[in-house]
Amino acid sequence: MTASLLLRNVHPYAGKAVDLLIENGRIAQIGANLSAPAGVAIEDGKGEIVIPGLVEAHTHLDKSLLGLPWYTNEVGPKLLDKIDNERMNKKRLDIDPARQSARQSILSSLKGTTHIRSHVDVDTEHGMWGVEGVMQTRDAYRDIVDIELVAFPQSGLLRRRGTLELMDQAMQAGCEIVGGLDPCTIDRDPKGHLDAVFGLCQRYGKPLDIHLHEPGEVGAFSLDLIIERTRALGMTGKVTVSHAFCLGTPDPALIDPLIEELAVLDIAIMTTAPASRPAPPVKKLLQAGVRVCSGSDGIRDTWSPYGNADMLERAMFVGLRNNFRRDDEVRLALDVCTTEGAKVMEIEGYGLEVGCVADLILLPTESIAEAVATRPPQRRVIKRGKIVARDGVSIRTAP
Amino acid sequence: MTASLLLRNVHPYAGKAVDLLIENGRIAQIGANLSAPAGVAIEDGKGEIVIPGLVEAHTHLDKSLLGLPWYTNEVGPKLLDKIDNERMNKKRLDIDPARQSARQSILSSLKGTTHIRSHVDVDTEHGMWGVEGVMQTRDAYRDIVDIELVAFPQSGLLRRRGTLELMDQAMQAGCEIVGGLDPCTIDRDPKGHLDAVFGLCQRYGKPLDIHLHEPGEVGAFSLDLIIERTRALGMTGKVTVSHAFCLGTPDPALIDPLIEELAVLDIAIMTTAPASRPAPPVKKLLQAGVRVCSGSDGIRDTWSPYGNADMLERAMFVGLRNNFRRDDEVRLALDVCTTEGAKVMEIEGYGLEVGCVADLILLPTESIAEAVATRPPQRRVIKRGKIVARDGVSIRTAP
Ligand SMILES: [Zn+2]
Ligand SMILES: [Zn+2]
Repeated sequence: MTASLLLRNVHPYAGKAVDLLIENGRIAQIGANLSAPAGVAIEDGKGEIVIPGLVEAHTHLDKSLLGLPWYTNEVGPKLLDKIDNERMNKKRLDIDPARQSARQSILSSLKGTTHIRSHVDVDTEHGMWGVEGVMQTRDAYRDIVDIELVAFPQSGLLRRRGTLELMDQAMQAGCEIVGGLDPCTIDRDPKGHLDAVFGLCQRYGKPLDIHLHEPGEVGAFSLDLIIERTRALGMTGKVTVSHAFCLGTPDPALIDPLIEELAVLDIAIMTTAPASRPAPPVKKLLQAGVRVCSGSDGIRDTWSPYGNADMLERAMFVGLRNNFRRDDEVRLALDVCTTEGAKVMEIEGYGLEVGCVADLILLPTESIAEAVATRPPQRRVIKRGKIVARDGVSIRTAP
Repeated sequence: MTASLLLRNVHPYAGKAVDLLIENGRIAQIGANLSAPAGVAIEDGKGEIVIPGLVEAHTHLDKSLLGLPWYTNEVGPKLLDKIDNERMNKKRLDIDPARQSARQSILSSLKGTTHIRSHVDVDTEHGMWGVEGVMQTRDAYRDIVDIELVAFPQSGLLRRRGTLELMDQAMQAGCEIVGGLDPCTIDRDPKGHLDAVFGLCQRYGKPLDIHLHEPGEVGAFSLDLIIERTRALGMTGKVTVSHAFCLGTPDPALIDPLIEELAVLDIAIMTTAPASRPAPPVKKLLQAGVRVCSGSDGIRDTWSPYGNADMLERAMFVGLRNNFRRDDEVRLALDVCTTEGAKVMEIEGYGLEVGCVADLILLPTESIAEAVATRPPQRRVIKRGKIVARDGVSIRTAP
């Protein structure tokens, strides 16, 4: 599943034009006028920009409605409305996790994503259906994208008896990460919820990635409990907090001490850069040394009609949400959707250096900021040295 | 510049399939199995959705950098930094208002926009350069889009001597609307600024569209002064407040009385639905009976790299900013970018009824919400009965 390729005339991060020799899926040489070893194909970069593959660090592959008839959303406004609506309608709507995750993975790859972290529902209604389906996609589409799974108690962990046992099963089945969800407002038992998910992390030696939608002071309280356990259990660098709306509270007295702890314990923050919610301040977090990644979250599902799996568009959202206008700021937004995401997912060999895995995109723009602002549909996507998508056409066909 | 056309098999607002007979640029009949009068061309609607043309109710045609070399933004964070940077570099960067407004107008038309309200800079550095350039475009591209001009004192009205005289000149030259800008924070003389711009409205019998970025209480104060003058001068229905970030203040005691007055005096609100600023609550305003429109604001200019003139994408931003997820809510977001905008611009004959001007778009989606969420590049755009764009190709060529 690795390939060799000589990529001629490309501009790494819009810098000086170079050739890039890929051997056995890794970048072997970067330089001027490289020659292709015998049998190695040559791809004309046409002077386009090259950057490492986009990193989708938070999505839900198992629940997209892509390719299904249009779902008319009439769901109530509360988080629990959406949770219950989805769980109760998943089978009726024929949201088969294997098929749907394949569709979304191909779409992601078309847009230039080379790595996906997917939360996958684990609940008493559907058991391992989601995990098995996404694992099937993970195995079947390794040639175009790397997928890792978070076992995710979407309907609550303690409030629905039997879920914890299923989470255990999901981890045994090979999920790479333990998930969690709003310890106060959904499970209504922060100590119980956090002890349970951190307990799973300890049992399986796996990282945590917890959804934390809780706003303001209550979110800050939960975050504080997460920080406490991260320190006590020696899980420095092994915890991600997704959404963390509470960090968008405009109150430095509440937020600044938390950010300091995040930096010390290397706890990562995932933000979709939501326009309608308080959101973590990306630049401030990066400057404090906190890893910040981003993701599409749900893509066209029963929660919301939005989303197209384009992490370049997500970088634009990060830019718009954080009022990044200068080119150096827009670059930060791209970093969140590439290198920062790779740090959070601990991707081996990610980058544009010699020795890195050749997971790349070519973009026909003059600058990085232009790529983020215009999100050109013309993209060439390279996975382990092989061209897997050109201008919206994938080497794989969606089911 | 009007045409006749039989449009077969289209779904108005995703409703029942009909044929639509357009005669001399207006919708003459809507029904099943209409027959084409002699010599009238037939267009196969292919079962697509048809909606009225998109309304770009707030942009700056004179200052886009479209088609120019990439501009690396290194501008400071303050509003005045951006204002001064632009004014001082406009000639150096070759931002010719005639050429740039033509480029943006064609791009807008490609995306399905049929009506544009453009603010146009009037300042002592460039005089009538902007107004003349955009008027040239307005006249030259009438076949694809209707453009109206707002004389806009971007650099301040009173703080730069001579600007008021130029504003007067711009109105005499035929600008349709008087513009204004942040009476407190830019001109630092709210009474003086508002008396001056309302004075121009009175002198020329024209409406007002004022940029109001001022946040919180100071914005509310300026808005109150605008309300006061609107009432005193009998300008009900003739005032638009653009941005109105102050209405996004989460303080009903401050906001609700203002919204009530807006409704009584039929003062319209324009919002770009910014992700990084407080923003007017769209649903609440519409429910109160306030007209709400939207626009791209500046498109790829010295202020910001973002923007692509796509008002369907803008509808998505309105939806995302206001957390519109249900199909009926997403429809509101589209309304803001179509019918509501038409009300603000007082467009004669706008709509999908018999007798309306045939300014239309065809969209290959199943639902309105899908159109907003996916923003398909395949669009057919009809202006006064004539197909002016198909799938990203315009009948006009950009200079
Ligand atoms: Zn999520
Ligand atoms: Zn503006």
